[in-house]
Amino acid sequence: MLILYDNMISGNAYKVRLLLTQLGIAFRTVQKSVTNGETRQPDFLAINPNGRVPAVVFDDGRKLAESNAILLYFAEGTGFLPGDKFARAQVYQWLFFEQYSHEPYVAVARFLRHLPQPLNAQAEARMPELLQKGHAALKLMDNHLAGRQFLVGDAYSIADIALYAYSHVADEGGFDLAPYANLRAWLGRVAAMPGHIPISHKCGG
Amino acid sequence: MLILYDNMISGNAYKVRLLLTQLGIAFRTVQKSVTNGETRQPDFLAINPNGRVPAVVFDDGRKLAESNAILLYFAEGTGFLPGDKFARAQVYQWLFFEQYSHEPYVAVARFLRHLPQPLNAQAEARMPELLQKGHAALKLMDNHLAGRQFLVGDAYSIADIALYAYSHVADEGGFDLAPYANLRAWLGRVAAMPGHIPISHKCGG
Repeated sequence: MLILYDNMISGNAYKVRLLLTQLGIAFRTVQKSVTNGETRQPDFLAINPNGRVPAVVFDDGRKLAESNAILLYFAEGTGFLPGDKFARAQVYQWLFFEQYSHEPYVAVARFLRHLPQPLNAQAEARMPELLQKGHAALKLMDNHLAGRQFLVGDAYSIADIALYAYSHVADEGGFDLAPYANLRAWLGRVAAMPGHIPISHKCGG
Repeated sequence: MLILYDNMISGNAYKVRLLLTQLGIAFRTVQKSVTNGETRQPDFLAINPNGRVPAVVFDDGRKLAESNAILLYFAEGTGFLPGDKFARAQVYQWLFFEQYSHEPYVAVARFLRHLPQPLNAQAEARMPELLQKGHAALKLMDNHLAGRQFLVGDAYSIADIALYAYSHVADEGGFDLAPYANLRAWLGRVAAMPGHIPISHKCGG
């Protein structure tokens, strides 16, 4: 059975749990702490040399890392990735936007808030920039979602899964989503999709 | 004709110039400064609301941003993207690795060195972390390239283009590539591919 190296705090790992569940693909999870160095131990570096969850291992031993690469792999040929070439490229655009302009701020602010408080001075000094750039990403999404049901082509896709993962828990990082009515309505639509699971839902072993 | 919103310093823009040139796709470029706020002006935000080059505009007005999304769009169905599903997923993995674990350190260190020197205290304070994490990314690539000709499946692909863009000018950011013999040999192989152009080569208008 497919193995997912997973972490219950990680929105990146949640993306994969969510897609696999909605696709009905069986998997078991191996939990890896992201705070105690488990993902930097030799056994895990043999799976992902970059030392990050999520990563998946197939029955034949092949390995794949990077949450959005895993989403693309499993979404191919399904309704979660558009058949139209340009719409597919728009999904790619959102996936790279997520990893470059959204996650490093929205997710990292949340992660710092999950650490024992109060933060050290270095972490605390980062928060204003994280909040400013995270809000820029959320505002961009909110503008785009005006009059749209989903991020690409008005159909639910892995672009929505990738952006939902950390947007819907942005408040845990100190982001107030009240100004973003389009984004909040979209969060509701994503959460109402068939087979949706919450981030804390524990799937598999 | 396809329009590329471009910048001669940007490795992300260079990726697109390189692939389009190697594919023989005609394009013209519009240069946008990344230091004087041009990419944050309304005319450019109408093309890419995220205010970053590269972005392309097709003849019919459709727009696409994010360098690696543009690479994927044009590489589809060509020899620059593997036909095998799992090999393609490995290309995706490298593309996301590049944007999350490589570019934010290797490219940003170089960008800071391109700014008027000496850097302000805030920029200077970032350099040790940029160098440490950038070296981690370069070391990971060097390890992976041991015994390999290219990053995925021993064939030149957009994974190589994406990682070459900032790796081959990493020295401009203060990275000494001397310890990375596999990586240096790979840089030479990429530079020897048919149709290769240097980063400073000016294509189009």
